[in-house]
Parts: sequence; C-alpha cells; structure tokens
Amino acid sequence: MNPEKVNLEQKLSRFDEHWSPKVVGELNGQHVKLVKLLGEFVWHHHDEEDELFLVVGGRFRMEYRDREEWIEPGEFVVVPRGVEHRPVAEEEAHVMLFEPASTVNTGSAGGGMTVADLDRI
Amino acid sequence: MNPEKVNLEQKLSRFDEHWSPKVVGELNGQHVKLVKLLGEFVWHHHDEEDELFLVVGGRFRMEYRDREEWIEPGEFVVVPRGVEHRPVAEEEAHVMLFEPASTVNTGSAGGGMTVADLDRI
Repeated sequence: MNPEKVNLEQKLSRFDEHWSPKVVGELNGQHVKLVKLLGEFVWHHHDEEDELFLVVGGRFRMEYRDREEWIEPGEFVVVPRGVEHRPVAEEEAHVMLFEPASTVNTGSAGGGMTVADLDRI
Repeated sequence: MNPEKVNLEQKLSRFDEHWSPKVVGELNGQHVKLVKLLGEFVWHHHDEEDELFLVVGGRFRMEYRDREEWIEPGEFVVVPRGVEHRPVAEEEAHVMLFEPASTVNTGSAGGGMTVADLDRI
C-alpha cells in the first residue's frame, strides 16, 4: 500500500464549520488536522500536549495571558503544554495543526466549543 | 516564557545546502525541519519513523519501488515506516518535514548523504 498525497485546499473545500478540526493525516501517534477559525476561541491550555499552528490562509492572533502575536500565512507557532492561549480570527483563517492524537481542542477548558469525535476527511 | 512564531521564508533564507535538513521547531518528541531538495536522494526507508513531507516551494517527485507521485506546493505526503522511497527534485524544492526527533535523513541506507548532527536555525 503506497502513500497518497494530501492537497490542503482540496481538504479545506470539504467543510465550512469553524473551530471544528478535521483529521487529514496521522503519523507517529500525531495527527495532522485542518481547522477554520473565525471569531474568538476559549482560553485554555493542554496538560500533556504541545500544539503547532501553521497558517495556510488568512491570519489569526494568538493571545497569551501577557502578550499576543499575529500569525500570518507561511508562519507557525508551537504552543508548549501548560501555556494558556486563545486563538482569535477577525476574518476567517485556515490553519494546519500538528499535535498528539490525544489532543482535545479546548484542552483544560471544556465547554460548548469542545469537539470530542473528530471527522477524518 | 512565551512561544515565538517561526516564519518559513525567513528560515529558508538562512541556508543554501541541499539535502541537509535544519531543525526549526520541536514538539512532543517530534522535529519540524526545513530542507532544500535538488537532484536525486538515495533510496531508503525508516524502520521506526513515519515521515511527513509538506511542499512550501517548488515541487518534487516522490518515488516508490512501484510508483511515483509529484508533490506540489500546499500538498503533503506521509511515508509510513518501512516504505522505501526516494525524493527527486528536478528543480530546487523547499520542503517542511515533521518526524520524530530520532529520524536520520538517509534512514536504513546511510552513506555520504547522511547528516548526523542537524543544525537548528
């Protein structure tokens, strides 16, 4: 069985929801996900997982408790476990995530924006 | 200590060598690397590591023993452990790698193209 490549734009065209990560790849116990951001997410952290956000379209602001930073296309940020953060997108942004398969989107916070069972697309 | 974002183009401007991956991020025991491809690499596989190749500039051909596939900008492929592969770039291609920190570029093959100590840039 040979590997099949994945086209990010093609995968992004398959869903419209915001804050609902879709699994598009898996390796070494890690997931590659795509997510569309719009508006404000919840403040949270992950106890056990470091999380990579790579912008593939649009831009978003990553807020920390004492600072914030805009992440632009072709840029990524790694948020280490334990660090509280909140992504905010004033206009829609498309982001690729790389994180352990165990990661829950809202981490420590839980609540209504939690997506427990991720779709694979 | 807050996370600092990484700009892929900025990092790519810091080196010229081909087939010499540079570490630009680390999370969950995995490395994020950037590498410039030109020409033919060696046939190899990795015994323990799955390997993700995401094209950020140019294009390259991933050859398997019975097939080949061009990987274009905005596309990635995951090569599972054990699968023999050979990347070939007819013109320079820029690729982001996600793989375990333990991964050696030439895997099972060894030889002159092996890079044992990776630079962090």
